[in-house]
Amino acid sequence: MTTEAHDIVDLIRTKRDKGLLTTSQIDWMIDAYTRGYVEDSQMSAMAMAILLNGMERREIRDLTLAMIASGETMSFDGLGKTTVDKHSTGGVGDKITLPLMPLVASFGVAVPQLSGRGLGHTGGTLDKLESIPGWRAEITNEEMFAQLRDVGGVICAAGGGLAPADKKLYALRDTTGTVEAIPLIASSIMSKKIAEGTQALVLDVKFGSGAFMQDIALSRELAQTMVDLGNDAGVRTSALLTDMHRPLGLAIGNANEVRESVEVLAGGGPADIIELTLALAREMLTQAGHPDADVEGALASGRAMDTWRAVIRAQGGDPDAALPVARETHTVYADASGVLLEQLALPFGIAAWRLGAGRARASDPVQHAAGIDLHVKAGEAVTAGQPLFTLSADEPARFERALEALDGAYAIGPAAEYTARGPLVAERIG
Amino acid sequence: MTTEAHDIVDLIRTKRDKGLLTTSQIDWMIDAYTRGYVEDSQMSAMAMAILLNGMERREIRDLTLAMIASGETMSFDGLGKTTVDKHSTGGVGDKITLPLMPLVASFGVAVPQLSGRGLGHTGGTLDKLESIPGWRAEITNEEMFAQLRDVGGVICAAGGGLAPADKKLYALRDTTGTVEAIPLIASSIMSKKIAEGTQALVLDVKFGSGAFMQDIALSRELAQTMVDLGNDAGVRTSALLTDMHRPLGLAIGNANEVRESVEVLAGGGPADIIELTLALAREMLTQAGHPDADVEGALASGRAMDTWRAVIRAQGGDPDAALPVARETHTVYADASGVLLEQLALPFGIAAWRLGAGRARASDPVQHAAGIDLHVKAGEAVTAGQPLFTLSADEPARFERALEALDGAYAIGPAAEYTARGPLVAERIG
Repeated sequence: MTTEAHDIVDLIRTKRDKGLLTTSQIDWMIDAYTRGYVEDSQMSAMAMAILLNGMERREIRDLTLAMIASGETMSFDGLGKTTVDKHSTGGVGDKITLPLMPLVASFGVAVPQLSGRGLGHTGGTLDKLESIPGWRAEITNEEMFAQLRDVGGVICAAGGGLAPADKKLYALRDTTGTVEAIPLIASSIMSKKIAEGTQALVLDVKFGSGAFMQDIALSRELAQTMVDLGNDAGVRTSALLTDMHRPLGLAIGNANEVRESVEVLAGGGPADIIELTLALAREMLTQAGHPDADVEGALASGRAMDTWRAVIRAQGGDPDAALPVARETHTVYADASGVLLEQLALPFGIAAWRLGAGRARASDPVQHAAGIDLHVKAGEAVTAGQPLFTLSADEPARFERALEALDGAYAIGPAAEYTARGPLVAERIG
Repeated sequence: MTTEAHDIVDLIRTKRDKGLLTTSQIDWMIDAYTRGYVEDSQMSAMAMAILLNGMERREIRDLTLAMIASGETMSFDGLGKTTVDKHSTGGVGDKITLPLMPLVASFGVAVPQLSGRGLGHTGGTLDKLESIPGWRAEITNEEMFAQLRDVGGVICAAGGGLAPADKKLYALRDTTGTVEAIPLIASSIMSKKIAEGTQALVLDVKFGSGAFMQDIALSRELAQTMVDLGNDAGVRTSALLTDMHRPLGLAIGNANEVRESVEVLAGGGPADIIELTLALAREMLTQAGHPDADVEGALASGRAMDTWRAVIRAQGGDPDAALPVARETHTVYADASGVLLEQLALPFGIAAWRLGAGRARASDPVQHAAGIDLHVKAGEAVTAGQPLFTLSADEPARFERALEALDGAYAIGPAAEYTARGPLVAERIG
């Protein structure tokens, strides 16, 4: 970290006028912002200038490294196992981490899944797991290390000391309309993942109506930016671009997503969840040096399930405990016969959020039993009167606003009008 | 003013994505920002989005009207005279208000020159006048009204109650690299001028190296935007685009600019100051309904000088008092014979500022005797050893940094290498 001083107004003007920021300027800016010398109002103007004028690869790398340098870093070097992590840009019904972590860990690889809580219409992995009685997300670094050594997998909250500049900047972007900037998204995600000290990383970058970025070209640019950042920093990084136009699986919520994940580990579950879990497991194991791992076999044999149960127990959870059930349900039935033509991820995500599965503010609690269970997936035949999906909530007053969100989110029509989506895993970048 | 509530993040995203803000959205935003409900960090992101993506005429008008509505407005309706004001975007050696105000007022027109103090390399009219012993800038609205009625002219500080939203936004723009946005500059200037209640307004919009906007095309766009805003609001508004590549006149500072202005009122003074004063006086008198006023005659007859003396006395000043003289001077001599090829306004402005004529922070005092007196103007012949200009300061330690600013700001060479500038008044817009 340089000690050379700069003038933040000069830096803002440089980026505003489509110039490049030097390494020294970026180091100084992030340090000065973390210390509070650069003000929020100045950083938000800079964020808007970056959003509209972009950054080149070297600047994004400098920004990421400066955010890492703003806090502590972890290392798994003494573990004696290769560590591999997965990060998803967030989707509706995206519980893939739950079956994926034990599946990959069952091959003797360490999987430290430092995860977050949900905000907005995409759920958070920690929220889902907290529906398991006794399970706790907050563990010490020593507990994490021991669990990775003994069990192989861990899903826990990221330590508060990793990349504090990113925490501050992320909160600012959220209130200033500057979230959707590829350099800022990429450096935010990758600063935490690199600071965490993983040796390999697989990114699940979503596109489609329910994803953060709807356009596949933007998702590809984000994925490539993050893959470059990881590899430049010595983390073996690759990405899959995956379709998030329709919900993943049948369950959208928290406890019901855990239930569906356990079904997959038991050899059942929806085809799309199995497909994406296997694709990401293969990618993670390839990055970790096991390109020929028999991931289907590990699911079928119950080996992944054994690791799941060990991980849940290690973090205080009871894998056999009953999961919470909502006090109220409301089922929607087909009003015609035909084919379910569409099922849009975003409104289903918003509806589940309104039912109580998500939170509006970071300090809000979630209702673990709230959510949506689909009975039919898009493309399947339906008969008039058949149940399409069931809403669950602790307070029946929530159904009305959830149903409002679902207005126009699904449609039944003749089979000829159905448009199949492309493959779930559209591209690999790495 | 509407009471409909909006979400500032939605508004920022709209402008960020090149959309249009509605009248209701702009009204709400400026009101909410003035009240502190919209935060500085949000407004600076909005300002950067406006700077980079622009605003259309209707949005700029809405922004200006919302800023006017944030505070009090004045009216000169009961005065029984036409009021006409002038605003300059700021230049080096620009003391034109001083001879112009009494010249125009001497025709029975009321000239309420609500002025500011200098910040940065361009001086402030109030700073210049405060070098006159006893003269005071702060007068009540009642005093202003009486002086306009009895004497015809006033130069005073703008009341703090006019367009408070603009004051808050201007301070924010200054620290966030968002000053140079035409919609924001135009609405800032025009909100104060319209709130002030003048009936007619002439804008002196500068271009060239010493101006805020160097490019004539940008100055033209700014001028047209402000002329439209004024006329849309019922203020008869026109603009002159004037060249600010080289300093205006021979004096750059405070007391020395007053001295030069008095020379012009006495029938002497530099040709460029006389030319610009007459051009602006004609334009103001035309807007005020006196297109055929004999402005040369009013200067030559001493009638403008009489009004000047009355205005200075009315605000407590002694027009015959000796002006302050600096403790130290440093003269720079020609090191060769030839023609003075160049004399750049910006470095001369910065040098005068460093000598103490200007201020770095709004709370700093200025040194009234500090400044620069040119002995030769660009295009004139010089002989080796002849004095080129004299620096004045109260502290000799200031000379070194002023001379550093002047490095490369002037050059002597053969007459064939001299490039004359175009006309001082390049265009009229109105």
